[in-house]
Order: sequence, then C-alpha cells, then structure tokens
Amino acid sequence: MSKDIPEFSLQRMPVYLNYLRTLPDDGTYNYISSGAIAQALGLGEVLVRKDLAYTGCAGRPKVGYPRVELIAAIEKFLRINDNKCAVLVGAGGLGSALMCYGGFKNYGIELACAFDNDPKKAGTQIGGKPVLPMDELREGCKEYGAVMAIIAVPAPAAQQTAELLIGAGIKAILNFAPVQITASDDVKVINIDVAANLAILASML
Amino acid sequence: MSKDIPEFSLQRMPVYLNYLRTLPDDGTYNYISSGAIAQALGLGEVLVRKDLAYTGCAGRPKVGYPRVELIAAIEKFLRINDNKCAVLVGAGGLGSALMCYGGFKNYGIELACAFDNDPKKAGTQIGGKPVLPMDELREGCKEYGAVMAIIAVPAPAAQQTAELLIGAGIKAILNFAPVQITASDDVKVINIDVAANLAILASML
Repeated sequence: MSKDIPEFSLQRMPVYLNYLRTLPDDGTYNYISSGAIAQALGLGEVLVRKDLAYTGCAGRPKVGYPRVELIAAIEKFLRINDNKCAVLVGAGGLGSALMCYGGFKNYGIELACAFDNDPKKAGTQIGGKPVLPMDELREGCKEYGAVMAIIAVPAPAAQQTAELLIGAGIKAILNFAPVQITASDDVKVINIDVAANLAILASML
Repeated sequence: MSKDIPEFSLQRMPVYLNYLRTLPDDGTYNYISSGAIAQALGLGEVLVRKDLAYTGCAGRPKVGYPRVELIAAIEKFLRINDNKCAVLVGAGGLGSALMCYGGFKNYGIELACAFDNDPKKAGTQIGGKPVLPMDELREGCKEYGAVMAIIAVPAPAAQQTAELLIGAGIKAILNFAPVQITASDDVKVINIDVAANLAILASML
C-alpha cells in the first residue's frame, strides 16, 4: 500500500502520528481540521490533505478528521501493529544511546539485541538488551526473527556489516555510519549522516 | 547560492563529498566520470550530472570531473571552509554520543560545548567539551559565536529549547527530539526522528 506514496509524504506520516498522539484526550480534539494540523506542523493545508488521503481516513467538511480514527488509519498505513523486530550492530557511543532509546516501541518496533566485535562488550547488557559477539549475528537475527537492523559501526566497516546483515535475512537497514550503503533493490536502506545534515544546515545559513 | 538548489540535490552534496574524499590519492582517480560516481552511490547518472552542475565544476566529455577540483567546488558550495560553531542542548545518551562524534569537523563545524539542566552534569566534560548549565545558554552561545545548535532533549522540552536557542542568536537547528520543532522562516530546522525513520523502513517491507 505505502509503495505508491511519494517518499516525502511517507516521511511525514510519523510526524502526523506523533502530533495527533500528543493531543489531549479531554474531548477538545475529537475532530481536528487539516488547517489546524498544517498550522501546528508548519506545513501547507493542501499538502496535509493530500498526505492524509493516502491513509483512507476521510475528513468531514467544516468539522475535520475524527482524531482517533485518523490515528488508527495512520498506524494501519505504517503497519505499526505488525510488531517488527530489529537488531543493532556497533554498540559504541551512538549505538549504546540508541539501545537506551525508548522511542522505537511507539512504532511497534522492538530492538532485540546488539552485536559488537569487541569481546569485552559481548555478554554485557545495554539498556536491558544483550550485546552478542559478531559471529552470532546470523544465528541471532534468525532466532529473534529480526527483519530490520540499525548500523552504528565506523564508516569503513559499514558496507561489510550491511552485507552480513542481508546474508542473515535482514530486509531494511537504518545506517548511521557516515558513508552511503548500497544494497540490492529488495533491501530498503535509509542513510542518516548526522554531520552531513549539520553541513546542509550550515550551507543554508 | 545553495538556496536555488532543490532540497534533494542539496542533501546529496555531502554524499558526493564523502565518496570523493575516500578515493585513493594514487593517481587512479585524478578524473572520475559521472557514471562511476552514479554506480558507486546507487544513483542515476543524469541525476549526478545535474546535481554536480550546481557546484560549477565542469566535467570533461569522456574524461570526467577533475576530482580535486570537484571536491573543492563542493566544499565551496557547502561553505565548509567558513568554519562554523555549534552547541548542543541535552547531554543525555544521544547528546553525549554526539559530543564524542568526530564527524562534524569534516564539514568545518566545531561542536563547542553542551548545555544541560542536570546540575550534576554542569562543570563536567564529555568528549573533551564542557557541559554548562542551562542558565548560561544565552551567554555561552554568544561567547562561542555559535550559529547552529543540536537539540537532544526529551520531546516535551524540545520546542522551548528551540526558542531559548533562537533567542540566543542561533540560526540553524538539528533536532533529534522525536517531535517536530517549528520556527520562523529565518531559522533553518532539520528534524531527525530516529524511530520515525525506522517506522518508515518498516512500512516499506
């Protein structure tokens, strides 16, 4: 379903969801208009209406979207209720921070464990999750039924790590190593280069 | 200059730069073709040529781009040689990891210090950078001449933190709190919601 949606619209879906979930349940927001959503998020109203049309939830003229239904429609669209399991590779500074981060469960994603090539880290726990040695990667991914992975290894090791993960059945990778990872078309990759984003901001000043 | 470039093209500039910088200096890559760049990064060749045209560096037919000149052109385009100073707010797990992260200097950005509201953290150092109390934010930003900031505070504190930073003269914000930050048009904001990116990946599976 979500394959026909433009990438930018897809990227905004969690933003809408986040916003709608934070509104109070006191009855004030039983309905919310596209204009109100647009204003709160600094987006155009037409854009908001177009995006939300992909969820199949219809707004009523002069009333707005029924908020609870709209939340459920976005959750269904993002398939948040199909719980998914992810693993992480590279339990360094950033990797450890991500293991302690509680935000994944808001999207039905469980971060099951980490893999690290440092023998001192294997056998420990970070954020309540086990750190396993790299040579258990294939087995560990299968055991947890992991379909997604986060890469937080140094840049020179990133592509090789991706290939190990793909060999272990991983179908989607979120890469934080500051290097572009390439993979075949059946594997989805999002590269997040933190410094590059800061550089882009700097160039806009 | 970079204001006329489409956002997606701008986002790819650090990717090109990163890739070109990693190529060996042994003479093999004195010239590199748009086709070779496209293949290495999994992009279309026409797209690469269009993007690189924004830098003003011209490729030669059947020879390619002079690599050193192309690197310099992208650096100039991204204004990497205008050294810029950034501060961070929220020295928790993710914030601390970012303070220890060495990648910013590749883009001419110096992360000067962090601010945190935990009195136990103020006065300490993380990654060799001082952690200062929140009530020194305004003064600290001015002292360091900071124009950019990274927000790594919990979601409910993010918007207020952004407003404090803007009040202290910050013109560009990279926000890691899992909530959309809004600001007036003269302040540039990039929101990076880690869990939302994972959710987007999950929905594509």
